[in-house]
Amino acid sequence: MKSVPEELQRVFDWIDAHQEEAVADLQRLVRQPSVSAQKLGLEECAALVVEMMHADGLDATAYPLAGGPPVVIGDMTGRSPKTMLAYAHYDVQPPEPLEKWNYPPFGGVLAEGRVWGRGATDNKGGVIAFVKAAKAWLQAGGGLPVRMKFIIEGEEEIGSPHLGPFVEANPELLRADAMHCLDGGLNHSELVPDIDLGLKSVLYVELVARGANSDIHSLNAPLVPQPAWDLVRALNTLVDENRHILIEDWYEDLWELGEEEMQQLEENARRVDLEGLKKEWGLKEFALGRDGIEALKARAYEPTCNICGLVSGYTGEGSKTIVPNEARAKIDFRLPPLIDPDKAVAKLRRHLDKHGFAHIEINLAGRQMPEPPYKISVKEDISQAIIRAAELVYGKPPVVNGVSAEGTILKHVWMPTVLTGFASPDCNLHAPNENIGVDTLVQGIKYAAAILWEYSKSA
Amino acid sequence: MKSVPEELQRVFDWIDAHQEEAVADLQRLVRQPSVSAQKLGLEECAALVVEMMHADGLDATAYPLAGGPPVVIGDMTGRSPKTMLAYAHYDVQPPEPLEKWNYPPFGGVLAEGRVWGRGATDNKGGVIAFVKAAKAWLQAGGGLPVRMKFIIEGEEEIGSPHLGPFVEANPELLRADAMHCLDGGLNHSELVPDIDLGLKSVLYVELVARGANSDIHSLNAPLVPQPAWDLVRALNTLVDENRHILIEDWYEDLWELGEEEMQQLEENARRVDLEGLKKEWGLKEFALGRDGIEALKARAYEPTCNICGLVSGYTGEGSKTIVPNEARAKIDFRLPPLIDPDKAVAKLRRHLDKHGFAHIEINLAGRQMPEPPYKISVKEDISQAIIRAAELVYGKPPVVNGVSAEGTILKHVWMPTVLTGFASPDCNLHAPNENIGVDTLVQGIKYAAAILWEYSKSA
Repeated sequence: MKSVPEELQRVFDWIDAHQEEAVADLQRLVRQPSVSAQKLGLEECAALVVEMMHADGLDATAYPLAGGPPVVIGDMTGRSPKTMLAYAHYDVQPPEPLEKWNYPPFGGVLAEGRVWGRGATDNKGGVIAFVKAAKAWLQAGGGLPVRMKFIIEGEEEIGSPHLGPFVEANPELLRADAMHCLDGGLNHSELVPDIDLGLKSVLYVELVARGANSDIHSLNAPLVPQPAWDLVRALNTLVDENRHILIEDWYEDLWELGEEEMQQLEENARRVDLEGLKKEWGLKEFALGRDGIEALKARAYEPTCNICGLVSGYTGEGSKTIVPNEARAKIDFRLPPLIDPDKAVAKLRRHLDKHGFAHIEINLAGRQMPEPPYKISVKEDISQAIIRAAELVYGKPPVVNGVSAEGTILKHVWMPTVLTGFASPDCNLHAPNENIGVDTLVQGIKYAAAILWEYSKSA
Repeated sequence: MKSVPEELQRVFDWIDAHQEEAVADLQRLVRQPSVSAQKLGLEECAALVVEMMHADGLDATAYPLAGGPPVVIGDMTGRSPKTMLAYAHYDVQPPEPLEKWNYPPFGGVLAEGRVWGRGATDNKGGVIAFVKAAKAWLQAGGGLPVRMKFIIEGEEEIGSPHLGPFVEANPELLRADAMHCLDGGLNHSELVPDIDLGLKSVLYVELVARGANSDIHSLNAPLVPQPAWDLVRALNTLVDENRHILIEDWYEDLWELGEEEMQQLEENARRVDLEGLKKEWGLKEFALGRDGIEALKARAYEPTCNICGLVSGYTGEGSKTIVPNEARAKIDFRLPPLIDPDKAVAKLRRHLDKHGFAHIEINLAGRQMPEPPYKISVKEDISQAIIRAAELVYGKPPVVNGVSAEGTILKHVWMPTVLTGFASPDCNLHAPNENIGVDTLVQGIKYAAAILWEYSKSA
């Protein structure tokens, strides 16, 4: 393990000495619901983030967005004029199904050495990491090593539909040399950060089939439209049993793996504990019998068409004899570089029309069209700084991915961007019983502090 | 129009003079929720039925059922020893979706000349018809014309899963010469009763596909099972786009139409206002372009496989990026005579296994295996008596159907049985805003009274 420079060690010591403060602030943040998909508590949460940053001596302003919740932006000078933009989000996934939580999803309960609640890891833990890392540098490091800008938005979980116009109208506000984001996680096998040098787009659509003007008693089934069957038949044309997407030209523009990315996959296949993943998910084997480098390649680079939700008619206890007059499917298509989302939607529409489903609507399910996918090189300063910081804090080299399997980050203004993070494998991301270990959080704060330090060295 | 005999006219006059009492009792009954699919208020509703029958001078006892809600049974002597069993049910369909009701579903509001609420027509209106018809004969007709037994059960809407063993253990209690049931409706074109001489079975199943041990972030979609896709693919193998069921040997034992039934269909095709049905449902045409005798034949005699409900993953507002770990479909297969439900389930199981879906479960969705379908002749006394009573009350010949498209009635002890009723086309059966017109109810009571009279004549 590399030795920690004295200046950085003082910052780490301060972080260790103030971990109760970090935990208490995270609990407070979790207790403020902020579900972007349900427009719940977003204004309040933005105000709370600003209040907490001010209390910690940081610059922060909540800017209103046209049609969306406020975005919190801060700007702190540093010893180097080089500017690092730190991106996080204060919104969270919906907490449903509520009955599966052991602690209240917005309780912020501290128990079993963890803070429990929706957003504890994703991404309120990331917000706290940035904020406490900056405070630590101010309190124990004589100021920030680089100029640091914050952007903490409130619609990440629904694809940031209202952020783009604001960012484009205010280019100076967010101008920076590079951006990083602590919304990612630790690799499941080695508990070192995953470092992602590219991102997919998440094209999230809802397909809607409609029938009669209301649900009809199912004794009339032979006479009325059956939108649930229409939807089933339409869905069945989209993907085959090997998960190959059947929409014409879907794989057009798909970026081909080069030598660098194949090397990263080979390296990762040696390191990633795929058996641990299977165990975590309760699986004997992965889908289609995938394993090793094949599994990692599929997860990173394969276009997917996944059903996130499906609903029609009566879904309660027992039985109800109706022909439902509506059926809906929520689908996320993940588009690796360089599949263009606009083209993809047009292809989906053509596909449905061609197969006799012109009457099935395509909605964007509360999201806007996503930005296109992108990718940067491992040779960028920001890539190298974050790789060094991860090794310093976690004791061994991080796992570097050519393209992240995760989808969204601020892509409206392009600059060299890295997604990393410290989410633990057992944090229950996007699921009931989300949590973060206190140790995990403390290490995440140190990671954020070390990234600032390492980036200042590459100036 | 046939003239009403004086004795029966006195009974009709009493019914007209006491319509406010009937409406008030129906309102009271609707205000008592009794949703069998949700096990809601059933005990209370049975007790209320008994209380109301006693108040009207009728015999009534609530018998406990093993595992189910009580069944109310009564026995009243009549001038003829011939015994008519009158079947109705006090349970109702679930009221969901609640937001689509203009009046509270359990409010029993009297407005616009109608009583509004779940069960107002189906089948609390039928219960009131039997009860008030019997009371009218006692008050104004010098006693019942035939011996009358009542059976009013509380699980009709879920297929009467607990009634069979009770009926079999108590054969004397329900012994009768014939049975009829006022759970049917008026023909949509002519507003005369439909008279059904046979019934299908409703085989109601839930298919369940399962995946990982919890919902998984959809970034991992290439690696985890996708039960929603499994279910879609499995469903897609069941029926083709022409609604032909693809399960092997499904049409085995299907009863072939004879001359009598073809005549009934031809007669009905001349009388039924199919255009009115289309208008009611907001359709330009029926499914598959069906019309006329073809539409009626399909509705009555075609085996169906209908999706009543479909659910997987996130179905709320906006978006959530998960691979759901479970997917469910509620399906009602209607089995015309003489398709055997036990054999049908076995065929479905074999079909799923054969197509690679051995892991998909078949549950009975809160129902037990239904009784087999059955059929009687138009020449039976009970058939003829009800046809005459309908003509007397509604002024022209009723519509006689060889097999009803509706599904359930007491089939555990076989006797000649007819399903008829007075549900109005605009009563919103099984849908939001169920209601019954006061005039419709009064005419229904007269119909029940006339059936007793006509049946006594055929002795």
